[in-house]
Amino acid sequence: MSLQLPPPPARSFASDNAAGAHPAVLDALVAANVGHQLAYGSDPYTAEAEARLRDLFGPQAVPFLVFNGTGANVMALATMVRPADSVVCTQWAHIAVDETGAPERALGAKLQTLPTADAKLVPDQLRELAHLQGVMHHAQPGVVSITQSTELGTLYTPDEIAALCDTAHSMGMRVHLDGARIANATAALGGTVAALRSFTADAGVDVVSFGGTKAGLAFGEAVVYLDTALAERAVYVRKQVNQLPSKMRFVAAQFNALLADDLWIRCATHANAMSTLLYERTAGIASLQLSAPPAVNSLFPTLPRQLIPVLQDWCFFWDWDVASDQVRWMTAWDTTADDVERFAVGVRAALALA
Amino acid sequence: MSLQLPPPPARSFASDNAAGAHPAVLDALVAANVGHQLAYGSDPYTAEAEARLRDLFGPQAVPFLVFNGTGANVMALATMVRPADSVVCTQWAHIAVDETGAPERALGAKLQTLPTADAKLVPDQLRELAHLQGVMHHAQPGVVSITQSTELGTLYTPDEIAALCDTAHSMGMRVHLDGARIANATAALGGTVAALRSFTADAGVDVVSFGGTKAGLAFGEAVVYLDTALAERAVYVRKQVNQLPSKMRFVAAQFNALLADDLWIRCATHANAMSTLLYERTAGIASLQLSAPPAVNSLFPTLPRQLIPVLQDWCFFWDWDVASDQVRWMTAWDTTADDVERFAVGVRAALALA
Amino acid sequence: MSLQLPPPPARSFASDNAAGAHPAVLDALVAANVGHQLAYGSDPYTAEAEARLRDLFGPQAVPFLVFNGTGANVMALATMVRPADSVVCTQWAHIAVDETGAPERALGAKLQTLPTADAKLVPDQLRELAHLQGVMHHAQPGVVSITQSTELGTLYTPDEIAALCDTAHSMGMRVHLDGARIANATAALGGTVAALRSFTADAGVDVVSFGGTKAGLAFGEAVVYLDTALAERAVYVRKQVNQLPSKMRFVAAQFNALLADDLWIRCATHANAMSTLLYERTAGIASLQLSAPPAVNSLFPTLPRQLIPVLQDWCFFWDWDVASDQVRWMTAWDTTADDVERFAVGVRAALALA
Amino acid sequence: MSLQLPPPPARSFASDNAAGAHPAVLDALVAANVGHQLAYGSDPYTAEAEARLRDLFGPQAVPFLVFNGTGANVMALATMVRPADSVVCTQWAHIAVDETGAPERALGAKLQTLPTADAKLVPDQLRELAHLQGVMHHAQPGVVSITQSTELGTLYTPDEIAALCDTAHSMGMRVHLDGARIANATAALGGTVAALRSFTADAGVDVVSFGGTKAGLAFGEAVVYLDTALAERAVYVRKQVNQLPSKMRFVAAQFNALLADDLWIRCATHANAMSTLLYERTAGIASLQLSAPPAVNSLFPTLPRQLIPVLQDWCFFWDWDVASDQVRWMTAWDTTADDVERFAVGVRAALALA
Repeated sequence: MSLQLPPPPARSFASDNAAGAHPAVLDALVAANVGHQLAYGSDPYTAEAEARLRDLFGPQAVPFLVFNGTGANVMALATMVRPADSVVCTQWAHIAVDETGAPERALGAKLQTLPTADAKLVPDQLRELAHLQGVMHHAQPGVVSITQSTELGTLYTPDEIAALCDTAHSMGMRVHLDGARIANATAALGGTVAALRSFTADAGVDVVSFGGTKAGLAFGEAVVYLDTALAERAVYVRKQVNQLPSKMRFVAAQFNALLADDLWIRCATHANAMSTLLYERTAGIASLQLSAPPAVNSLFPTLPRQLIPVLQDWCFFWDWDVASDQVRWMTAWDTTADDVERFAVGVRAALALA
Repeated sequence: MSLQLPPPPARSFASDNAAGAHPAVLDALVAANVGHQLAYGSDPYTAEAEARLRDLFGPQAVPFLVFNGTGANVMALATMVRPADSVVCTQWAHIAVDETGAPERALGAKLQTLPTADAKLVPDQLRELAHLQGVMHHAQPGVVSITQSTELGTLYTPDEIAALCDTAHSMGMRVHLDGARIANATAALGGTVAALRSFTADAGVDVVSFGGTKAGLAFGEAVVYLDTALAERAVYVRKQVNQLPSKMRFVAAQFNALLADDLWIRCATHANAMSTLLYERTAGIASLQLSAPPAVNSLFPTLPRQLIPVLQDWCFFWDWDVASDQVRWMTAWDTTADDVERFAVGVRAALALA
Repeated sequence: MSLQLPPPPARSFASDNAAGAHPAVLDALVAANVGHQLAYGSDPYTAEAEARLRDLFGPQAVPFLVFNGTGANVMALATMVRPADSVVCTQWAHIAVDETGAPERALGAKLQTLPTADAKLVPDQLRELAHLQGVMHHAQPGVVSITQSTELGTLYTPDEIAALCDTAHSMGMRVHLDGARIANATAALGGTVAALRSFTADAGVDVVSFGGTKAGLAFGEAVVYLDTALAERAVYVRKQVNQLPSKMRFVAAQFNALLADDLWIRCATHANAMSTLLYERTAGIASLQLSAPPAVNSLFPTLPRQLIPVLQDWCFFWDWDVASDQVRWMTAWDTTADDVERFAVGVRAALALA
Repeated sequence: MSLQLPPPPARSFASDNAAGAHPAVLDALVAANVGHQLAYGSDPYTAEAEARLRDLFGPQAVPFLVFNGTGANVMALATMVRPADSVVCTQWAHIAVDETGAPERALGAKLQTLPTADAKLVPDQLRELAHLQGVMHHAQPGVVSITQSTELGTLYTPDEIAALCDTAHSMGMRVHLDGARIANATAALGGTVAALRSFTADAGVDVVSFGGTKAGLAFGEAVVYLDTALAERAVYVRKQVNQLPSKMRFVAAQFNALLADDLWIRCATHANAMSTLLYERTAGIASLQLSAPPAVNSLFPTLPRQLIPVLQDWCFFWDWDVASDQVRWMTAWDTTADDVERFAVGVRAALALA
């Protein structure tokens, strides 16, 4: 199949990790390259980054800088599970599906996946696990891990997360929030520090994986303890799961730029807006089956099967569910309106020609 | 105790990971920040870095970029151990002493440490383990991990490593080389690609942790498989041990700068030379007990106990063996001759006043 | 609620592990208590037991005696998984549901559970996992573990297992059979050694957990390697997962009695027959919803909710699915026809009075 | 080499696990084989065994029955380690040397072995580890595991253990006692329940592995929690490390016989006495280098190298240190004075002829 398509956008719609780093972030990284600094975080850049994270989450928060998202999740969970605990999450959870079993390897613990259409857990699903608790033959549901925004581009409301935390805590469970796209969630829920707190510290979340890479860093994430008792062994566990950067100033400096002046929120607000724009430009195409505007920065349309590779060659995006011809279009902090307009035009052209 | 000391050097003698990144490395990192690149290594920067590593180790080598040294070691070992294997190393090995038990956690395997005064194993120590092999009650010595240059600043000759590899292989064991300071070793053994190969590929080493951070990167290491059969599961294990950078171009671009025109060797040659210079400037001071010039980039002198904190306050370095008042002075790619001269002057002044 | 019920049976219908040991088994255990025998299997009782297991599975089989079922499964899987592999099983699998996460702890590997109504996998479910293979972000489906007879009292035909093995092997996967009730399955499929082989060695199964405890031992199971290459590290792994009995003669002697003269098959045939008899005595009671005779030794009827504790007090059995008022009635090698008749009378009496 | 030796003893001097089970123990096991009992410890035999263990260790003790010694140790340690903890023990420790790395596999934790000539730790060795505590790069010394009586046949005094416990607790560490031969230690230290408590509960030990197999059971050990907070997850961990017997009555009944009327102490007292008798019969032979009477039930003489296999063929015992021609002679609950006399005569005859 050969189609004549218009010139493609400058950037793909593959993923927010296909984007580069924000220029201000790299400027800061380069600016930190002055003289010697003690390794492993004994440097002023790290002190500043930790202070900035406490500004976000509250003075009681205990933050740790790490390398990547899988590492952040594994470190967080490794400090949360008790012997024989399981980690409860959805069938879509990144920790369960997209981390090559890293949690099982590092934790030696079961991940118990629960079914859900929208990648969100509800309190009743936790309550249904109560019959496992106290029975010696079953891994003990001990940690709930939720993702905000979710792997399906949906959002929990702060109340929904608070209800999950209440239920979990009443059952003796702890709550982890995988915030690989916490910036997009924060942007979508108000775009303020208060918004961030509403679904984390205020809602009762115990430990947060705070995503930096997808938000505009070259690399870098943070694990933030809101239940500080859980942080007791964190500094050791960070090293133990290979997540202690030696020249930590280069992670910290990036965070300092990203967290200054709400750059992280502004970037995510833009990414979300670009996804909404793409929705607006394509929602009229019935075959795409886009039933509602995106909550954050991704759309999951369906396409004629034979058209998928053609469009992917033209401007790359990933398959989502091959069986149902569903794909994923994702915007990033650097996606431009021009990218979106060109992409929409190309999609329409391809559909018209198909 | 209060001493009048001359102005301190601009850079500490704490560690080669207290140094920043080489400017050319950061230039390359910044230059890679153009547009979108698919994540996880599907980008031209990574292809180039992998090609450069194959140029170093030979066309059969299979390289993988990772975040940090502990991660590189854990990934390497995780692909090398068989069920019930132990990893044999010296009592000084970084994997045994300075990685917070990361290998034991990720591998579920015993680290068997052997005593040695110079941080080097000899074949007879392996042969003495033969009585464990085939006995069901003992973890099976399955992997030997050596460090080059060692944690004590010593060097194996290529022949010594070849002899260890021969013995290990004859016993059915595999050989890992922790090359966190492989650049310093390469520089010390000739400063050529041939020198590198002489103690790795040519000597029979199976898997190498190739250090980038201490050699001049902001962050980044590589695991290089010389026995390619061991690489079969490496791509999965890399993700599983939290060592898969999503925006991998930012690791790869740094490596491309460091490996171009032997920059990594030139930097290490300089660091080694600065350590030699420091030896020359201080070897005459008998109380330091420096009996021989350094093989690479570190010295381990003894100091009057009360003087140690004074000098550390003046220009930082680390304690090495508190019981014997031994400290470590380490040079880096960016240590200058002026740093060394100032440091030696200060040490002499302190000793004179003490 | 208080009911006048007839005298209860002498034995409960709780589980086949509520039964004791067959008298011949204990006689053999006691008879082995003569003088000294070297520990860990260097004794003639163990040699005989291993020979008897080879007689069952074929001369190429490599058997190992162990303590219990969870241990047998964990040992088997620990020798079968490669780095980053997952273990595929049903949502009902004992390894996934009833072993407190022992496999995840010992293996550090993901258990991927697939949905099924009858606790049996079909080849298409394996084929649907092919899209995970070769993708670095996903645990690699590497081992299929099936249970025969299943946790729901169903049976695979030999052809069904052969088809699963063919599909698994064509995908590079290995096949484990959890045979905690392999005796019941053997009895149901013909009651001969040929029947046993038809769904194990002949079908292409690689490793079998051979159940002894439920079949009439006081304790003891075996792991039998049919793919002998997988047995290479088994003797070490057995000790490593706490499954090496020191006074092994006392396991072996029991097995020698159970495997002599097909006692294990005769016991299981009887248990199965008692379950069938119970079905015949109760199938006419519509409210029990027993739609078909049992394949092996368990029935899963529904009961009026308020009657369940009354009957459990009278003659114990376990709840199965509380939400649907479903319970499990299980027979054992020592269940008598009189037990069944009394139990059926009591159930009818309770239902009549309810 | 061919020697004319007198008739050998009826029992070897190989190990206390080469002995069978005490007749009273097997009688009790057989007597428990009556009718149905619920599995996993919900039976009166287990209730009695747990009560008997509480009688030994005090009403606060929380006991769990398990299969074997490695399993008991692994279960105990798995409930004692915190994330990133190491387990400190001697270079001779069974957990470090003779369990095929089972602790590392199940715990994912480092075992830190300390040198000692007599297999006993002293408080100063713990204090020397204090510099590791609080440093993020090192596994954190968190549990001390001592063995009583030790792998070298030596004994801690109650005061020595109390001092170790005091030091360990003052450093935030917990204390595990591997009591595979706790019966021999109890016998040697007074042969009373008070003696047992003097070096366990009274000394401050937190968790005990209570050995049953070597004391006269066919199989069976117990994990006894004296710090009951550590028992919180024990019932789950027992299953998770494959140590939950389903037909638990058969372990419990054996314990009930062994613990009744101090049978376990009487058996151990006899074993110790036989070892002392052997010492008395052979101590005059200078070449054996037996410098002191045995503390418990083993001797470690040296023999002319060429004589060792000859004597082993005649009446088996194990090599201990091949390099120094040292062997181990071990007595058991069933060793008779006649066995000892015959053995001593044979050894003398062999030495005379050599």
